[in-house]
Amino acid sequence: MPAIVFYDTTLRDGAQGEGVFFSPEDKLRIAEKLDALGIDYIEGGWPGSNPKDIEFFKKIKDHSFKHAKITAFGSTRRADNPPEKDRILQNLLETQTEVVTIFGKSWDLHVREVLRITPEENLQIIEDSLAFLRSRGKKVIYDAEHFFDGYKSDPDYALATLKAAIRGGAETLVLCDTNGGVLPMEFLEIFRRVREEIQHPLGVHIHNDSGVADAISVMAVQEGAVQVQGTFNGYGERCGNANLSVLIPNILLKLGYDSPVRPNLSRLTSTSRFISELTNLQHNERQPYVGGSAFAHKAGTHADAVQKNPATLEHISPELVGNQRRILLSDQAGRSTILHKAVDLIPDVTKDDPRIKKLTEDLKQLEYLGYQFEAAEGSFELLIKKAFALYGKVFSLNGFRIIVEKNGDGPARSEATIKVSVDGVEEHTAADGEGPVNALDMALRKALLRFFPEIKGFKLIDYKVRVLEETKGTAAKVRVLIETTDGNEHWGTVGVSENIIEASWQALVDSIEYGILKQRQRQEQEK
Amino acid sequence: MPAIVFYDTTLRDGAQGEGVFFSPEDKLRIAEKLDALGIDYIEGGWPGSNPKDIEFFKKIKDHSFKHAKITAFGSTRRADNPPEKDRILQNLLETQTEVVTIFGKSWDLHVREVLRITPEENLQIIEDSLAFLRSRGKKVIYDAEHFFDGYKSDPDYALATLKAAIRGGAETLVLCDTNGGVLPMEFLEIFRRVREEIQHPLGVHIHNDSGVADAISVMAVQEGAVQVQGTFNGYGERCGNANLSVLIPNILLKLGYDSPVRPNLSRLTSTSRFISELTNLQHNERQPYVGGSAFAHKAGTHADAVQKNPATLEHISPELVGNQRRILLSDQAGRSTILHKAVDLIPDVTKDDPRIKKLTEDLKQLEYLGYQFEAAEGSFELLIKKAFALYGKVFSLNGFRIIVEKNGDGPARSEATIKVSVDGVEEHTAADGEGPVNALDMALRKALLRFFPEIKGFKLIDYKVRVLEETKGTAAKVRVLIETTDGNEHWGTVGVSENIIEASWQALVDSIEYGILKQRQRQEQEK
Repeated sequence: MPAIVFYDTTLRDGAQGEGVFFSPEDKLRIAEKLDALGIDYIEGGWPGSNPKDIEFFKKIKDHSFKHAKITAFGSTRRADNPPEKDRILQNLLETQTEVVTIFGKSWDLHVREVLRITPEENLQIIEDSLAFLRSRGKKVIYDAEHFFDGYKSDPDYALATLKAAIRGGAETLVLCDTNGGVLPMEFLEIFRRVREEIQHPLGVHIHNDSGVADAISVMAVQEGAVQVQGTFNGYGERCGNANLSVLIPNILLKLGYDSPVRPNLSRLTSTSRFISELTNLQHNERQPYVGGSAFAHKAGTHADAVQKNPATLEHISPELVGNQRRILLSDQAGRSTILHKAVDLIPDVTKDDPRIKKLTEDLKQLEYLGYQFEAAEGSFELLIKKAFALYGKVFSLNGFRIIVEKNGDGPARSEATIKVSVDGVEEHTAADGEGPVNALDMALRKALLRFFPEIKGFKLIDYKVRVLEETKGTAAKVRVLIETTDGNEHWGTVGVSENIIEASWQALVDSIEYGILKQRQRQEQEK
Repeated sequence: MPAIVFYDTTLRDGAQGEGVFFSPEDKLRIAEKLDALGIDYIEGGWPGSNPKDIEFFKKIKDHSFKHAKITAFGSTRRADNPPEKDRILQNLLETQTEVVTIFGKSWDLHVREVLRITPEENLQIIEDSLAFLRSRGKKVIYDAEHFFDGYKSDPDYALATLKAAIRGGAETLVLCDTNGGVLPMEFLEIFRRVREEIQHPLGVHIHNDSGVADAISVMAVQEGAVQVQGTFNGYGERCGNANLSVLIPNILLKLGYDSPVRPNLSRLTSTSRFISELTNLQHNERQPYVGGSAFAHKAGTHADAVQKNPATLEHISPELVGNQRRILLSDQAGRSTILHKAVDLIPDVTKDDPRIKKLTEDLKQLEYLGYQFEAAEGSFELLIKKAFALYGKVFSLNGFRIIVEKNGDGPARSEATIKVSVDGVEEHTAADGEGPVNALDMALRKALLRFFPEIKGFKLIDYKVRVLEETKGTAAKVRVLIETTDGNEHWGTVGVSENIIEASWQALVDSIEYGILKQRQRQEQEK
């Protein structure tokens, strides 16, 4: 099969998205991950628009990548500068990347109203900006901004801008739908007409304002485009860009194209999650292929069917993209799903066991109260173990008290005191913390350490707070999710209360009890 | 232009999505909103699969809708039952809806391996299940499950199932991509071939596992489909269904089709947000048309351009769908954006004012620390007013202390004491609360009420907590966003700290100060 070129612009166009902020260090770490995945081009930033981007290009100079090429992004020269005196083009040269991407105007309206020059001057600017960069040894990718709007307004002029870019030495011509307005059938018609006129490698760069960016990008490949631009998780201005996390599997697994990504495809989900983490945005769990829900089955009958034959409801095998099948617990899931989980713990249990029935009912009640066990398998396992009396309390709480104090404009101070007992032996201690929950967390660990030295190795790696009834303001119920690791395994636990301290407490206790039980189990197995 | 029929399945297929839970009351409220928008069909649920759905159909019987028809969903009869003895079909009749939608098998593999009957028996089941419902006076919509997989496996058989449904009396045949695996070009080819063979009204029901559900649904309409099924916000199993919040404007505004939704299109954004609220899921702000970011402009140059001529970057006018343009504050936004906000407050300010420069730098620093002003215009306005010395502190805090106490298994108790001064007069008071933040909130309001009786009318309508560095566990920095109303206006405020109490305090103080300043302003204007 022919090869397709993946061009990532997460670090440039993605960074234009609302709520997306990358430090130069973040960018470097993301670039390394994209390289490891096998992405061909990584657009590093727009030097000159942003001091952070200049810092990134300095950092990246000393860096060697396995396969990916870093590109710098900018525009054609300003109308009143000759190329060799133009600041924008100079900035691009200073980045010292082998490849640069520059965008130019395709839309006659923009030429006249934004640049305020003649259509002929714009063609000249495109041609000589590219030729100048070529003369300095750069490979140049040309982004035809607003190409589809331009084509609809004046097809001959839009094509003339592409021809100017070819004369200037563009390696690839990328047709951009900058405002994301084009729909699939219209795209198909325009792309086919361009294909007939222009005998030069084409790419696409599509924004998602009409919700069809991923579809159009895949159609473009089938119609002969050799390069697709996009961002991971679809980050980008407004509604974002075409989503590489979705395009890559569509193009490799379904259309069968070749790419250096192919042998690394099982890293796709972890790469996408890694980028969510560094972006500090909630991972979109409903995202095709890489979302936590992408292969999650909820309804009782569907969950049943997928366990019999996954092909009945999964369009691909989740392992191919490093994701996994999940059977969800919910009030629609029914007993067979709970049984499925319980069987892992209690091998001889049957569907008709009254404890299974009771557990199903308890679960419904807890979900009604706001608990969710989808990301809290630790708490769920403890629940099953409690139902089957397989587990006794590891410690008991006599009481705790937290004090948060603020004087004038000084910072708030948090302190917790706690009293716990293990097998009748009491421990009373105290700790400071960054906030009330942290103080409680510290005090609890300190109190238990003498009884359970293994908790020293437990590390909280995630702490999430979700306000459940936002409209109730500060009196709203909150759900706290905690994720803990002991170096070998991860486990999630949950707590719900109107009081964030109480909710955090429930999740903390489950986290520690689950960890201690796991370690005991492991020790017994090793005996 | 011809009319298109919108069929909403948020309440049935949407409810299969991870994290989506509707009470019968929620469903009723959503159905009312969908009716007000002008949706043609509202699939209410699957009676028999779920006790909550039966309750919903009981509730809805006494309800009259302006235009929408409620439909009940189910499957064709079981192989061993005659139609008049089949429980599934009986359940559908009991709902007493005028229209029912039933799904049947199109895929020969499923017929043989899941139903374990002959292909001929399946055709018979489809035909007589529909004919039975027709004989009882129902209009029947037929959902051809896994139609595209079926067609790829055996086109003649897949077409034969559609013909059986026509013989049974189906009003519309809906081609379903149940596992969401089909890509646009493949869809186009299959749909065109079906169109040639089948002279009967067609619809589509597409899942989003390949990220192309919205695109395919729009293509289907252009190729002659008369009905589109989807859910609001794209909720649904796994990656969700085709998204009506996106399909409706694509089909009405861009393709020009007609629908009872047209005159109500400006309710689209509020309907979509209303459904997010009731679903208790974060509204997807990057959603085309109805997301908060859909018309948000961040980059300095783009924000500049869009202020000059919105058509340069917006594919439609946001007002058409009841959304709005937003100019975002960010480190890339540059001075012109800040100026734009400052000008509203200080009419004679210029771009070169040194206070604008200082403000730009302060803003960068605050964003670096984790503040975001995109949803906190209240805090941002106070920041501008401080920079221009237009505002003095409304009150000062001498100190507060919060105590959270838990004994044994009892609930945690929260109490706050606070000491504030206004113009040298001190107030010292205390309050209990649902948790530490609520206690502080209560105590602060109590302390200030004597000085500012107007705060009695302030109501906190939203409280959000975002953990910024989740990997730092309970010591992570959090950002608190509060939204307050005085009945006339809403304002957002923000606070950031490792201590949730401190972060909440900052947002609370801004919320109250902003509200008091607003009311003073209004009183002065009225004088």
